[in-house]
Parts: sequence; structure tokens; C-alpha cells
Amino acid sequence: MSLDKVNKFIEDELDRFLQQLSRLVRQPSVAATGEGVKECAELLVEIMKENGIPARTLPVEGGPPVVYGELRTQSGSTPLGREPPTLIFYDHYDVQPPDPLDEWESPPFEPQIRDDKIYGRGTSDNKGNIISRIHAVQAFLSAIGDIPVNVKFFVEGEEEIGSPHLPPFINKHKSLFKANCGIWEFGGVDHEGRPNIWLGLKGMLYVELWARGAATDTHSARAPIIPNAAWRLVWALNTLKNQDERVLIEGFYDDVLEPTKKELELIEKIHYPEEIVKKDLGLKSFLKNLTGPELVKTLLLEPTCTICGIQSGYTGEGSKTVLPSTAMAKVDFRLVANQRPKDILEKLRNHLDKHGFNDIEIIARSFLEPAKTPVEDDFVQLVIRAAEEVYQKEAIVYPTSAGSGPLYLFRNVLGIPMVSVGVGYPLSKAHAPNEHIRIKDYVLGTKLIARIMSDLGK
Amino acid sequence: MSLDKVNKFIEDELDRFLQQLSRLVRQPSVAATGEGVKECAELLVEIMKENGIPARTLPVEGGPPVVYGELRTQSGSTPLGREPPTLIFYDHYDVQPPDPLDEWESPPFEPQIRDDKIYGRGTSDNKGNIISRIHAVQAFLSAIGDIPVNVKFFVEGEEEIGSPHLPPFINKHKSLFKANCGIWEFGGVDHEGRPNIWLGLKGMLYVELWARGAATDTHSARAPIIPNAAWRLVWALNTLKNQDERVLIEGFYDDVLEPTKKELELIEKIHYPEEIVKKDLGLKSFLKNLTGPELVKTLLLEPTCTICGIQSGYTGEGSKTVLPSTAMAKVDFRLVANQRPKDILEKLRNHLDKHGFNDIEIIARSFLEPAKTPVEDDFVQLVIRAAEEVYQKEAIVYPTSAGSGPLYLFRNVLGIPMVSVGVGYPLSKAHAPNEHIRIKDYVLGTKLIARIMSDLGK
Repeated sequence: MSLDKVNKFIEDELDRFLQQLSRLVRQPSVAATGEGVKECAELLVEIMKENGIPARTLPVEGGPPVVYGELRTQSGSTPLGREPPTLIFYDHYDVQPPDPLDEWESPPFEPQIRDDKIYGRGTSDNKGNIISRIHAVQAFLSAIGDIPVNVKFFVEGEEEIGSPHLPPFINKHKSLFKANCGIWEFGGVDHEGRPNIWLGLKGMLYVELWARGAATDTHSARAPIIPNAAWRLVWALNTLKNQDERVLIEGFYDDVLEPTKKELELIEKIHYPEEIVKKDLGLKSFLKNLTGPELVKTLLLEPTCTICGIQSGYTGEGSKTVLPSTAMAKVDFRLVANQRPKDILEKLRNHLDKHGFNDIEIIARSFLEPAKTPVEDDFVQLVIRAAEEVYQKEAIVYPTSAGSGPLYLFRNVLGIPMVSVGVGYPLSKAHAPNEHIRIKDYVLGTKLIARIMSDLGK
Repeated sequence: MSLDKVNKFIEDELDRFLQQLSRLVRQPSVAATGEGVKECAELLVEIMKENGIPARTLPVEGGPPVVYGELRTQSGSTPLGREPPTLIFYDHYDVQPPDPLDEWESPPFEPQIRDDKIYGRGTSDNKGNIISRIHAVQAFLSAIGDIPVNVKFFVEGEEEIGSPHLPPFINKHKSLFKANCGIWEFGGVDHEGRPNIWLGLKGMLYVELWARGAATDTHSARAPIIPNAAWRLVWALNTLKNQDERVLIEGFYDDVLEPTKKELELIEKIHYPEEIVKKDLGLKSFLKNLTGPELVKTLLLEPTCTICGIQSGYTGEGSKTVLPSTAMAKVDFRLVANQRPKDILEKLRNHLDKHGFNDIEIIARSFLEPAKTPVEDDFVQLVIRAAEEVYQKEAIVYPTSAGSGPLYLFRNVLGIPMVSVGVGYPLSKAHAPNEHIRIKDYVLGTKLIARIMSDLGK
């Protein structure tokens, strides 16, 4: 089957699909606060239906619904006589909170095209990919009248807060989400325009740590005799990680797997755009002066302990002399195979207790296990070939991403080989102000999805 | 001169003066944000004039005006033939920010009388004392037709942020503020109803510490290679004080004076209401299990380093996986004689540099030197006697307070013996939600001011 007509449709109908992306971005859907999440699910169902994909929301206990779409190929078998395979797309319609708002050049929920880029919260992570995948399916339907494989769309609404309600939901619907292979939510090109293919994700444990002192904030003149929650929290946090970036929780690294020889070979090929990232972030150097393959290896394979936020006492204008009664830190741990978030939580509790901080409360907010698909897998190899054809450049394969997500539910629980490709690029500013994608990446990324579908159907 | 008529006026006109206090409290005057500060100065001038005290605002370069009032006795000499002395009242019309707002039982700027107490931000600190002192002067004017001594009112508008613009102002107007003795802004009774007299204040250095990492917040997946401002700040703060509450800045304690034998004797007499304060603040024990005279000695004589606030990254609802680009802490150092705030600032800078934190920026917000008047001073002895007469209980003398203020400008620069008495009590919740005073303390505190004026005029 020639893809020319499909690719022509992808190009010809670009504006219409960018408008659909704008429509989706315009609907806020901030999982952290719940703002607009349900409305976004409804809107997405509508957009999918308009594009010929039967879709519906599936209720998720305790969380926003999953948007689920399914479309079967009309041919009973592939040209080679095999039963047509099923490809599942994993995406999420929720986005990160937009703050700090004053750093956006155009408002986060008023998408704007400028300089051949489209700006807005979610354009890169991950609404651009949702629309791209719908676009690819619609291209087959319009240009050919059928799709070459069965497709399933699985679009959740809590990825950005660690998919807390997904595990029981996946377990309940195991047969519904059966598939032969899957495409994960993100990806794109590197700074040299080479397609990047991601085979794994880190896991995550996200916690809030709370220190509590007096029942109310009090006058700081009492500091010599009244416990200060902010100090307690600072001292407790300080025991978690040293200035060499080594996590000090007892046993934290016990289950970390050494990378395979093949993984290290793949990492050697990755060109991290060091100068561009440093310039973009205004940095003179990376942590520990890392550079080259050692930098990439650290980024992809090191587990981390990150303070995402910390708050205590008076932080407004001017000087308030107050002794804070509470202090809170949000901390994420990015975990690598085979660390387990529940085990790390237990080790964190033991660590704090052992260091005299049994007064520090831990509230666990999300648990994600690390997961990855081996590069030797047939589907991985098919995607690598497809990407090199579409982009006409060598594909760069990441054995794992530095990011996290509920990949393990698809890879480990459902047993599906999963590969992540998409429409972003290294300066897309996911999770930050001025998030955007380049339109040329959107087009190529959409053509890659079409190509993968086509190759799978052979 | 009998004080009966004066005291009768104080009691008879109580409601009218509580209404004036309400009027003053209803006008927000938050120095930290500037909210309503100038309006409050104008209102205070109006109230003073209505009570027969010629008053005006004096412009202060860079800050809100000082409200200044002056009234001379009509008699050329005291009954004993001496030239009538001048008594200066130091007060401040600014207040602390009212947050956390949701902990107030009635709104902070809508004063409310319930259970013989008057609630509202500033009732205790320090608008209640301002009105009390006006009330005492007005009582003499109404009941006797004259005041026994010359009085000066000095009411500033930036005490709660460390009086940053006062030093040059005082130096410029030295002759205007000449006085023989002065009453400082706060005081009241202890839990046993005994009048408390304060002879000194701690100094203060208030700083903001800023850590800066990347130019913008970024995705926390980059944590293995991108510096995190929140971690930098936590590590830096951790070097400032250990868990035994010892400040670790090199040379911090070098200039601390040992207390005199007389001061230690006074401290022995102070009954700190340990059980009541613990219950009020929901504490099982004080820091380091302090109790008795050792607790009081620590409270009054130890310099401190207090985190008043800390902010970095995402601190809203839910889980945002962000790597913060900035982190800020507000820190106050309460200093004792003879520590000097500018010297401590220099030592703080050296300490951070020495510990590898020359990337941490220090923004100094205020400087106050410690100051005290010796208990042997004649005016101190007069106030002690007056207080014991009015309250009919033993006066408890604090060689210094745990609090801070620009006392040194009056005590050290202008050379005036200064004593602090007032209308509060230990649960007045200064700087905290539900600030209030008891009306009975207001009446006694006002009578004490009248008595001091009367005794000075003898």
C-alpha cells in the first residue's frame, strides 16, 4: 500500500488539525487542581467522533474518566494473510499547571501560532500527540477508506499527577486493552532533526513531607523556646540527599540494575544538545560538570530525589517576623529498574525515623514503577526502520527516558511491547512556561504514525 | 495631686476610647505590604487632635510618615520647683500582615468585642497602647485641665518591618525628640496579673536568602543533570543552625555579653506561664525540654536564627513534577547585647562563602541594634513603684524582652532612659490570628500611664 495519498492528506489538512489542537488546548485540563479535566474528556470524545473514531468515556473510580476509542480494520487479514494486529495509543488529556503565569509570552490556554510553532499548555505534552494520532487515522480513512490495523486509543486524565487511579482500572479492563503493540505518549526529534525512539520510563514516588510545630504561627521572638516547623523540615530534607547528588536514604540504590552492554551502546549514540540546553536554561555547566555520554547515562539511568516545591510561613512582600507552625515540601523520586516505589516509601519512612524525624509526616501522592521494552523486540525494530524512512535520518534509541509515567501498566501488567515517538523537540518546554511544538515536527510525527500503522499491516 | 478624678475619667469614658481604638484598628496599616499605612497616619493625627494633642505627620525619607504630637504642661515648674520633665511615648501605627486569614474567628480589620476582650489586628500590637496613652493624656486635660509633665508622642509606621528608615530620621531630628525619659510601645500583665516592666529589646537582622538555578522552572525529569534551587537553599540553610539550636555562623556569639548578677536575679523572679503557653500552642514541651528560670534565661538572652518563611517551586494542590529555578527563605536573627546586625550580616556572608554557597544571594531587609536601660536607673525605679501601686501586685522586671525594635535609637542615640509597659497579656496573640487585648488590662495600663505622668510631675 502506497502511503502517498495518506501523506498528502496529512499535509493538505494540516490547518484543520491544528485548529482541532487549538480547540483541545483552549480547554484547560489541569490534573493537579482538577480544573477543566472532565470537560476536556468530553471534548476529546467529540473530536474523535468527528474524525470517525468511535469513542466514549470510561469511568475511573476516584479519578477523571479514561477516553477510549476503538476502530477495527475492515480487512480480515493482512496482505500476508496474518490476522491484523492491534496497535494501542497511550495518551493523556490532562496537562501540568500553567504557573508561573507571568513568564508566558501568550496565555497558556489561548493557543497561538507564531514562527511556525504552536504555543500553549499541552501543545507538546501531550495534546499535540493526541491530535497527531487522530490525524493519522483520519488520513487513512479519508485517503484509503480503511485503516491497515486495528487501533485503540487510551487517553487518561491524571498522567501529570502520577496516574494514581489507573492501576485498579487497568486490572479491571485487561481484556479491553489487549493489543499486540503500543505507542506511548511522547517523543520527537533531537537537535539534529534525528527521530528519537524511547523504550522505557522511569518510575516515580511522589510525596509531601509535612513538619508541624506549634498549633498556630507565633511571634518569632519566641524562637529560643518554640519549635520551628521550617527548621525541622530543612533539617529532615538535608538528610535525604548530599551535595554530590547522592540520595542518602538507606538502601535506596539496592535494587538498581546495571545497564546492559547494548543499552550503553545506544547511549553512546545519543547526542545531548548540551550547549543549547545550557543556553536555554542560562546555565554555565550541568551538575557535577557532566558532559558527553556520562551526562546522558546519568540523565537516563540515575534515580533522583527532587524537591518540586517547598512552603512555610510568610513568603509575601516585606519582612514578617513569624515562627511558622507548619512546613511542607513536595518531593519526587524518579526510580529506575528495578526500584519499586512502595519499597522506597518504606525506606524513606525508616530513614526519617532513624535520623530522629519521626515527627515528619509523609503523604504519598503517587506510585509508578519503572518499565522498558528491550531494543531487540520486533516491534521496536519495525518502529526504528519506519522512523528512518520517514525522517531520512538515523533513529536514535533511548533505552529509557528520564521521564516517568504509567508505562509499567501496559508493558508489565498487560504485557504489550511499547515504544514512544511523537511530535516534540528538545526545546518544547514541557511542564514550563511557553510550551510549544514546531509545526514541521507535527507533520513528520504524524507521518511516522501512519507509516508504523502501514508497516504493521503488511 | 490626687489621681481620683483622672482615674474616674479613664473608667467613665472607656467605651468612647474603645470606639476610637476600633476606628484605628479598622484602618489596615500593614507595613510589609504598605496597605493603608498612610491613611492610618492621617487617621491617627485626627484622633490625637480630637483629644487635644497637637499632632502632625513628619515625612520620613523612603518610608511612611512619623506621627508626632507634643503637649506642654502649663505650669512652669513641678510642685518641688524643678523644671517639668518631658516624657516621650514611642509607638507604631503599623501592624503585622493578618494572614493566615482563615484562622481568624472574626475578620482582622473588623474589630469585635466579645467576652470582655477586643479582637482585631493591632489591638495588642500596638494600637491599643496608642489609644491608651492618648486616653491618659485626655483624662488629665478633662479632669484637671492640665497635664503634669510635657509629653511627646512619636508614632512610626514601619516597626513591624524593622524600622528601616528611622535611623537617619532620628539623627536629623535629634533636638525635636529630646526627652528626660520614655515609655516604649508594649507591655502588660503576666498570667498572675502582675505588671511586667521591660527594660530592653533584642536587635535584629532580617534577610532574604535567594538560591537561583536554571533560568526557568523545568521538568523534574531533568533532575539528574540540572541544578535545583530548592536543594541549594536547603543545604545552605542547614549549615546555619544545628538541631541543638546552636547558630553555626562563625563568630556569631563572639560579642554576646554575659548577663549581670542583678539581671539573673530579676530573671529568677519571672514566672513564665509554661503550661498555659504549651496548651495554647499545642506543645508537649519547649525546645530542648527547657523549663523554669533556664527557659526564661534562654528566651530573653539567647540570640536566634529563625526561618520566618520559605518558598520554592510548586506548592499548590496535587503533584507537579517541576524542578524549581529559584528558592527563597526569609530569616530573622534576634540579636542580644552587644551583637551588631551589620557585623552579623558580614559573618553570614563569610559563612556561606566558606561553605561553598557563594551562589546564595543575601538581601538584607532590616537592621536593629539591641539596647537596654539598667534597672538601677531612677526612671525605672519610679515606674516600678507606680506599677506596684496601680496593680497592687509585685512588678516583674525583664532586663530585656525577647522581642526587637528600634529602641536603640532612643536609648543609645538619643540617650533617653526607656521603659516598656502596656495593655497586653501573655495570650494577646501579637503577630498571630485572633490578636486581642482584655479590656481590664486596657484600663489598668491606662491608669499606669497616668500614674507615671503624675509621679514624674512631683
